[in-house]
Amino acid sequence: MKSFKKSHGIETDEEDNIQKQENNSEASQNMIPLLLDSWKPYRRPRAIVKELLLKLRERLGSVCGIQWYCFATLGILTALLSFLLDLSVAKLLRAHQWLYVKLEGHILLQFLCWTLYPACLGAFASTFSHNICPFSTGSGMPEVRTMLVGIEVPHYLSVTNMFTKFLGLTCTLASGSTVFLGKVGPFVHLSTMVGAYLDKLSSLIQGKKKEEAGTEMLVVSAAVGVASCFGAPVSGVLFSVEVMSSHFALRHYCPCFFSAACGALTFHLLYVWSGDGETLQALFKTNFPTALPFYPLEILLFALLGLLCGALCCCYLFCHRWILKFTKTNRVFLKMLTTEKGLYSGLVVFFLASLTFPFSAGQYMASKYTSKQLLTSLLDSRQWSSQSHNASVQLELESLEWRSSGTPIFLSLAFFLLMKMWMLVLACTLPLPAGYFMPVFIYGAAIGRLLGEGVAYMSSGGRILGQQWTSVNPGGYALAGAAAFSGAVTHTLSPALLAAELTGQFSHALPVLLSTLVANALARSRDRPSFYDALSISKKLPHLPSLKKAFPQIPSTPLGQVLRKKSVQLQKAAGPAEVQSAVNSSSEAQIPVVDSHESQVFLGFVLRSELLLFLHRCQTQHMEGRLDEVCSIHPNLILVSPHNTVEE
Amino acid sequence: MKSFKKSHGIETDEEDNIQKQENNSEASQNMIPLLLDSWKPYRRPRAIVKELLLKLRERLGSVCGIQWYCFATLGILTALLSFLLDLSVAKLLRAHQWLYVKLEGHILLQFLCWTLYPACLGAFASTFSHNICPFSTGSGMPEVRTMLVGIEVPHYLSVTNMFTKFLGLTCTLASGSTVFLGKVGPFVHLSTMVGAYLDKLSSLIQGKKKEEAGTEMLVVSAAVGVASCFGAPVSGVLFSVEVMSSHFALRHYCPCFFSAACGALTFHLLYVWSGDGETLQALFKTNFPTALPFYPLEILLFALLGLLCGALCCCYLFCHRWILKFTKTNRVFLKMLTTEKGLYSGLVVFFLASLTFPFSAGQYMASKYTSKQLLTSLLDSRQWSSQSHNASVQLELESLEWRSSGTPIFLSLAFFLLMKMWMLVLACTLPLPAGYFMPVFIYGAAIGRLLGEGVAYMSSGGRILGQQWTSVNPGGYALAGAAAFSGAVTHTLSPALLAAELTGQFSHALPVLLSTLVANALARSRDRPSFYDALSISKKLPHLPSLKKAFPQIPSTPLGQVLRKKSVQLQKAAGPAEVQSAVNSSSEAQIPVVDSHESQVFLGFVLRSELLLFLHRCQTQHMEGRLDEVCSIHPNLILVSPHNTVEE
Repeated sequence: MKSFKKSHGIETDEEDNIQKQENNSEASQNMIPLLLDSWKPYRRPRAIVKELLLKLRERLGSVCGIQWYCFATLGILTALLSFLLDLSVAKLLRAHQWLYVKLEGHILLQFLCWTLYPACLGAFASTFSHNICPFSTGSGMPEVRTMLVGIEVPHYLSVTNMFTKFLGLTCTLASGSTVFLGKVGPFVHLSTMVGAYLDKLSSLIQGKKKEEAGTEMLVVSAAVGVASCFGAPVSGVLFSVEVMSSHFALRHYCPCFFSAACGALTFHLLYVWSGDGETLQALFKTNFPTALPFYPLEILLFALLGLLCGALCCCYLFCHRWILKFTKTNRVFLKMLTTEKGLYSGLVVFFLASLTFPFSAGQYMASKYTSKQLLTSLLDSRQWSSQSHNASVQLELESLEWRSSGTPIFLSLAFFLLMKMWMLVLACTLPLPAGYFMPVFIYGAAIGRLLGEGVAYMSSGGRILGQQWTSVNPGGYALAGAAAFSGAVTHTLSPALLAAELTGQFSHALPVLLSTLVANALARSRDRPSFYDALSISKKLPHLPSLKKAFPQIPSTPLGQVLRKKSVQLQKAAGPAEVQSAVNSSSEAQIPVVDSHESQVFLGFVLRSELLLFLHRCQTQHMEGRLDEVCSIHPNLILVSPHNTVEE
Repeated sequence: MKSFKKSHGIETDEEDNIQKQENNSEASQNMIPLLLDSWKPYRRPRAIVKELLLKLRERLGSVCGIQWYCFATLGILTALLSFLLDLSVAKLLRAHQWLYVKLEGHILLQFLCWTLYPACLGAFASTFSHNICPFSTGSGMPEVRTMLVGIEVPHYLSVTNMFTKFLGLTCTLASGSTVFLGKVGPFVHLSTMVGAYLDKLSSLIQGKKKEEAGTEMLVVSAAVGVASCFGAPVSGVLFSVEVMSSHFALRHYCPCFFSAACGALTFHLLYVWSGDGETLQALFKTNFPTALPFYPLEILLFALLGLLCGALCCCYLFCHRWILKFTKTNRVFLKMLTTEKGLYSGLVVFFLASLTFPFSAGQYMASKYTSKQLLTSLLDSRQWSSQSHNASVQLELESLEWRSSGTPIFLSLAFFLLMKMWMLVLACTLPLPAGYFMPVFIYGAAIGRLLGEGVAYMSSGGRILGQQWTSVNPGGYALAGAAAFSGAVTHTLSPALLAAELTGQFSHALPVLLSTLVANALARSRDRPSFYDALSISKKLPHLPSLKKAFPQIPSTPLGQVLRKKSVQLQKAAGPAEVQSAVNSSSEAQIPVVDSHESQVFLGFVLRSELLLFLHRCQTQHMEGRLDEVCSIHPNLILVSPHNTVEE
């Protein structure tokens, strides 16, 4: 595996270098190590190249700091990844659809095609990511949040992980709306990895030490991840403000915007160049009527929708927490998830796919649509339940997947909501690289659509609500529902802006914001953990804000209680005997030093190596020293006494 | 004046109370002080009312914290103020217009009406605000920024100031596009005052002490100010993120959004109820074509526009800094501005008005338009310079104020830009309550329009740029120019989003963001101070980020240099003689204590009162004590040594 990792590392390095040379920026310092090996051939040309690159670096540095080139490259690379992912997923989905249509008439073969294709992809993604890099499963968002707090999470930013995640994610998304998972979370993670790599490169070029780099790249990467996933720069920046646990540093603000704009621009331009659109447009462009987007009194209905979304979100999050606990306690699940990940994924995906098979329950829940088509259909501004006499509209509505079975669309939507709720919760247990934001967004759109269709049905023709509401737009409700539900699940407000950026529709900005606020208020009440909080707690990540929500009494627990449990600590005036016993009983590299065992005032750390040296000297020179006279105590920045609470 | 202040205080209190009773929320605790005076009549009814209100408080508090009601009230009150301001300004402007039209035929009378009306309003605003509350002049933004750093600025949040600012601002805006000033800055200041008042009320209700309140209300107020000024909630929140000097605390994020949404909603609903619109719509709604908003290659032109705006912004800011310095050094200006503010304002406004008189230079710069009409006309999506054969369009374009004099619109626009540049700089010296954002926004729109018209002219009919660009939209350039120029002047990025929220147009979001980023990069290069920075420096406000830009060497100045100038400091081991001399030479309540005069390591403060006690004891008991044995040294939270720089 190691050799594979290596060769892969070189591969991506090369790929990156090509990219770099295009930008004529960062490659310069990469050459310097080459010149140190004097036995290598072509010294003279290499010296010339090096000089040219150094000059280039100087010239570039005179325009603006090298880190700005890095930010631009980060945006461009992530957008490129996003575009490549979309492209390959679209090809895989089309292949599946083509095969399914070709098998028309053979129901058994169609069933096998419908179920085995995603099941195999799921099993492959699961096995592959488990074997190459087990850290690549899940969305990666909880880990990114932990890293943003300032805690290092090893292996999460390696190049292997990036490769694995990208491939695994492609397979997951190619399983289509059967598995019904998204790409936002993994994309934030992927962009973090690209960012970490570029950060290393930038500090190499600038000759900085590694420690000085800080979390800047991480914060920027979070913004870029969202921005280049949807081509939505402003909500990307808002997301990166939200994802910080306590404070957002203003010096990251401009880099975030700059990088996100580069990412979004590249993403849209790639779409235009690939022939998918005539110009730079929103991803899910809608055609809401602009003259009268909604009636003022509908504001109340939007607030009601927010309440509804909030309530359903609480239900969803409860199920999610329950299944997280269940998979950790149930012996069958636990065994499957630890040893037979591929089999588990294959089986679950097969089960989900057989349910969504268009000749079984799938016909009632528009299962032929891909996720994108689902969202587009839900955001449609025309009323589905209309008794229109316009023939062309009637014809177009007839071809709607939602009413393909002949059932009323209200029943279809309700059935969709009911089934997808538990299917989504089940899909969240899959050990695959996958995002959980987009499905929630679509689910919310379906909630909004149901309410919107209801209102439109009641108002059309002045049947119940009187004559004044003649043209209610159910698409607006779907938009608000999507933002409200996804915002409530993740405890964020940026989906309200994301909804506007995704559809290019700003006329509904206020009602969408209102729904999102109401849903958030309901979801956050009583310190309920968000979706990511639940994952953080379940994965035992050191993320204090999540912990606070799970155990509200934590911030006021005296630190003494926590520290005393470890109890391997040294007094300031410790003699060799005490040091010996401490070294024996603890294996950590740093051992805490307290003022005295009674006062428990924490002074700092001593390195284990220094302790060993101290012991060695005592033994050889028969010296009786005190710890604080011989070893240097590395102070902690904050003075901590046992009466301080954990929060401080 | 004092009695006036008092009576005014009661007035606004009453007004607030009416508002409160409508919301049934905060008025409760206000009643308690009444009951303490036992001699007052109606004890029984008052007791019942008090009990009811206490119950109400409890009931309200059980839903969510009292502070959330405060946030909602803040939004609603500020939006109400904004609406009232708009209403009265519109009425005053219409009166002026009516009078001007009535005098048709008498050029001299028309000239007097055109010039004296705004001159009188300006002189009144200036005199009034100078006499009632001298702190109410200017935009108030620099002071708000200083307060957000955590420094208290006295008198800036008083109720008198609020009243004066509101009335003065009404007069300033009623002078119309002659004076060409806006309302954003003062509105942020006004909302801060409302916020501070509500904050006091909330801590009274919750029984908190004043110190616990913190800057939360200030941050929220900044967001609400922008949100209820334009009905743009998201850019309000982004603005409040930007206005912070170093960090944005995430716990303010939700309150900001909530309060801004309340403000924007109220603002729009008030507009609907007043009959100005059928539903909640953007303030400057545009009708850009949605099918093909712009060609991909136009992106380059938008970047060029950003460069142009950045360059013009540098020019504008240079002039602004020069005039700030000039008014401080020129003796005539200095005397006028300190003693004869009313006269100065009147004269300057008269001069500006005589220039914009429609029969003089005004005919070349569309001076008949109000600021709102100017912006609406500039954002129009139809090409002005077209040789359209459509009669109705032709007719409508003929009535355009920009070509009223018969000059080509290119010359009109260029003349407008040239004249308004120095007129705006001159208007900035007026000692009135006024905002400087909106004029800059409109100025930027004119820059964009000029470029856009040029592109449209060259492309129409395939004359120069070939057949591929047939329908270039000059309104999009105006939008991008507005965001870019105003963003560059204030060194912010939120105008990019504000432009989208003001027009309800998200199709141009990416090019607008690109222009804003480019313009910002140019304006910020070489540590140039922003508009607000220049004001902060000129007003000598303690705002570190501004100072840094004015004197880039400050952050690296050793602290020792700064502290040594004061030099009244005590050694840790100081005897009575040294203490005596320190007490004599310094009059401050806290005297710094250093480890020793050589090391200059700063330990903390001793209170002057303790020093006096120490001296007294030494004298009476003939004791020879050391400072650190007798007095307690109050430690500072951060250990500061003279080698630390000021920034730390």
